[in-house]
Amino acid sequence: MSSAQKTSILAVGSLAFDTIETPAGKAESVLGGSVNYFSIAASFYSPVEIVGVVGEDFPTKHLEWLSTRKIDTSGVQIAPGKTFHWAGSYDQNLNEARTLSTALNVFEHFNPHLSPSHRKSPYVFLANIDPVLQRRVLEQAREHRLVACDSMNFWITGKPEELRETLRHVDILSINEGEAYLLSGERNIMKAAQHIRALGPSVVVIKRGEYGAALFTQAGAFLAPAYPVESVVDPTGAGDSFAGAFMGYLAEAGADRTLAAKDPAHWELLLRRAVLAGCVMASFTVEDFSVHRLLRLTNEELVTRQRALMKMISLSE
Amino acid sequence: MSSAQKTSILAVGSLAFDTIETPAGKAESVLGGSVNYFSIAASFYSPVEIVGVVGEDFPTKHLEWLSTRKIDTSGVQIAPGKTFHWAGSYDQNLNEARTLSTALNVFEHFNPHLSPSHRKSPYVFLANIDPVLQRRVLEQAREHRLVACDSMNFWITGKPEELRETLRHVDILSINEGEAYLLSGERNIMKAAQHIRALGPSVVVIKRGEYGAALFTQAGAFLAPAYPVESVVDPTGAGDSFAGAFMGYLAEAGADRTLAAKDPAHWELLLRRAVLAGCVMASFTVEDFSVHRLLRLTNEELVTRQRALMKMISLSE
Repeated sequence: MSSAQKTSILAVGSLAFDTIETPAGKAESVLGGSVNYFSIAASFYSPVEIVGVVGEDFPTKHLEWLSTRKIDTSGVQIAPGKTFHWAGSYDQNLNEARTLSTALNVFEHFNPHLSPSHRKSPYVFLANIDPVLQRRVLEQAREHRLVACDSMNFWITGKPEELRETLRHVDILSINEGEAYLLSGERNIMKAAQHIRALGPSVVVIKRGEYGAALFTQAGAFLAPAYPVESVVDPTGAGDSFAGAFMGYLAEAGADRTLAAKDPAHWELLLRRAVLAGCVMASFTVEDFSVHRLLRLTNEELVTRQRALMKMISLSE
Repeated sequence: MSSAQKTSILAVGSLAFDTIETPAGKAESVLGGSVNYFSIAASFYSPVEIVGVVGEDFPTKHLEWLSTRKIDTSGVQIAPGKTFHWAGSYDQNLNEARTLSTALNVFEHFNPHLSPSHRKSPYVFLANIDPVLQRRVLEQAREHRLVACDSMNFWITGKPEELRETLRHVDILSINEGEAYLLSGERNIMKAAQHIRALGPSVVVIKRGEYGAALFTQAGAFLAPAYPVESVVDPTGAGDSFAGAFMGYLAEAGADRTLAAKDPAHWELLLRRAVLAGCVMASFTVEDFSVHRLLRLTNEELVTRQRALMKMISLSE
């Protein structure tokens, strides 16, 4: 495939072990990490290339499994030492995680270096890592046609200037509602989105946990509900798998910032559909610990639930 | 108008003074009460008759004002003593009120007695009052073709059996999310709705504050967002004005339980549109203290915002 035709997504972020406690139970050292969730979700729509670092304790079997899908794991470095390990818990309010411990391990010195092929990826997703590193990735991926990023409290308060510099260079920010309020200093979703769009990203997606997601663009707001699953086991990774399906959908459709300029109405429609794809993917993620549900997810299940969610927002008879 | 043609809504509940503190400011002894909010909201769509009790301190000017709209206030009794007075506050999380004090006053001995004309109302809304009284109203309003009710924590825990008895006789329950969880014993919206529908109401509307409302019927779920206002001044009355516009919309359309049987698809569509009408009305209510915003609301503003909300959930270019 020539670089002109390349439609893959480059995703840079963490691969991790997670130890998680939720009202539904406990999972010890299961596979987590932002690009783990992101890439599996995106791979239902489009090829993905992941860049990250794991320790020698990371199961190579899982990387092999990812490779059996449309996921290029050649950018995953295996470093001497242990894999990043996050421990967290959720109470009855499943919308917010409480961090119990964070062992960065090999992730502490993560410094993404892209291969010549990865530098040509038209779609780039900068998962929730140090904004300085996010920026460094962007400087290498010079052929990007659409860049999305995520962030969190830790960087918003710890590296505000660096984060603002990154935001000046991304098209899309995908962020949690609470973090959108923190970043903007507003406690109102319309004002927060307005504020953030003025920082750079022309598209802002605010994730609202069990209440869905809101999209803000030049065309206004689109308010999408979460697909209401009957049993939420573990919300970890919902946001990253949301972003994976969202970006995957756009990449599959060939939608990038040139479309935004050429045909704003169609761009808006694709963004809205991408948000719904994200909501549906996230709803599967939360049905089990780790990426377990995604690993056994079929295209048929995906399509069925997408139709069901469309029906839940429809006003036609 | 003969009783066969009557399309008015009978609403039974409270008229009150509210003293409210929110992050936006404080309001002392302003006009509140469930049927106050409900009737003004409903009157944008359909005639309303209210039944309640006030003390001698209640401004008759307000009752006169209501009468200038499509609101029949002949069922409002003026009793010796003081009007019901509620004091509450909201913190940054505007979704939940904290009650500071409740002085029932003349409301303590409220015992609704319907006039012969009120007994013929086809649409009945039982606002959040003692379920025993709700039941007593229903026994008098024998020609009802559609009954909706609301309730709250106080009755769910204090009079669970009486509330269940009322629920066996209503078509629609409109209730807050937290109260739906309390009533059902479930912490999941799908399961809660399923549980409540099995108690009697074939239609359950779960109000989610700034996240909108969810409708549950035989046809499944409909998930509607709140209209995102830029400045929430006071959430008091949002739920009652939601219910007012919801019932008003159905009454205006002539939709009742016979339609549910005759043309379920059309019934479902009208319910969904009624939910959106409710969301829009609630969004105006919260823009000011008391019923101030509703009193100056124009039909043009209502229609403009309805269109705006429709655009925010639309998937057509």
